[in-house]
Amino acid sequence: MSCVFCAIVAGEAPAIRIHEDDDYLAILDIRPFTRGHTLVIPKRHTVDLTDTPPETVAAMTVLGQRIARAARASGLHADGNNIAINDGKAAFQTVFHIHLHVVPRRDGDKLSFAKGMLVRRDADREETGRLLREALAQIDTAELD
Amino acid sequence: MSCVFCAIVAGEAPAIRIHEDDDYLAILDIRPFTRGHTLVIPKRHTVDLTDTPPETVAAMTVLGQRIARAARASGLHADGNNIAINDGKAAFQTVFHIHLHVVPRRDGDKLSFAKGMLVRRDADREETGRLLREALAQIDTAELD
Repeated sequence: MSCVFCAIVAGEAPAIRIHEDDDYLAILDIRPFTRGHTLVIPKRHTVDLTDTPPETVAAMTVLGQRIARAARASGLHADGNNIAINDGKAAFQTVFHIHLHVVPRRDGDKLSFAKGMLVRRDADREETGRLLREALAQIDTAELD
Repeated sequence: MSCVFCAIVAGEAPAIRIHEDDDYLAILDIRPFTRGHTLVIPKRHTVDLTDTPPETVAAMTVLGQRIARAARASGLHADGNNIAINDGKAAFQTVFHIHLHVVPRRDGDKLSFAKGMLVRRDADREETGRLLREALAQIDTAELD
């Protein structure tokens, strides 16, 4: 299988999962810009904004919004988030299976963000994943009330 | 009126418009990272991802996708696009009326992108607006066929 995200979706490559449903998967980026940097991936393979159905772009972004809210509510204590889709190689897309980035941010983290561009390492990925999943479950529960 | 985007929506502040419908407005950023840098703005004022309805986030992103496709098809000859939502001051949000960035990119523009961070000026904004509106109209027509 030549697409690493399809391999992760199929369970044939490892990833720390934040969310999974029938159509979408959210996993931690293995080279995070900040702690909690998450990728939202549609399970069905498409490449970029030219071939992905609008419904998929919409659902991917709404899931990204939920994860952004979870990052604020979580033990990661995010003060905000950058949401991004890199559409095409010219826009720094590196995996050609469309995905949306959620990058949790904290006030005054500019330095660590710049440093993160070079290092992109999380000392405790398992704990980061746990904190996000926990906050996401709490948001989901609150919305059902 | 204290919100500049509400003022633009109300027609009380100037902007070069790429698209307008009942609920959304798309305008050129006055400090573009690249030529054609567009902002998609819901007309109804909300602040960030914490208070914006998911339906709005979805529709804003789908319109952003249309503009990204238009940028590729347009006389701007984009090879890709960065789509971004800056959610909160910690994430470099500067206007606290939610909006989505569409930044058209060209192969090998890394230098001009970095330079753009400092300069952020478009020598011919009117022409840039015209090129994007024209491509958007062509995409809309093609989809109706």
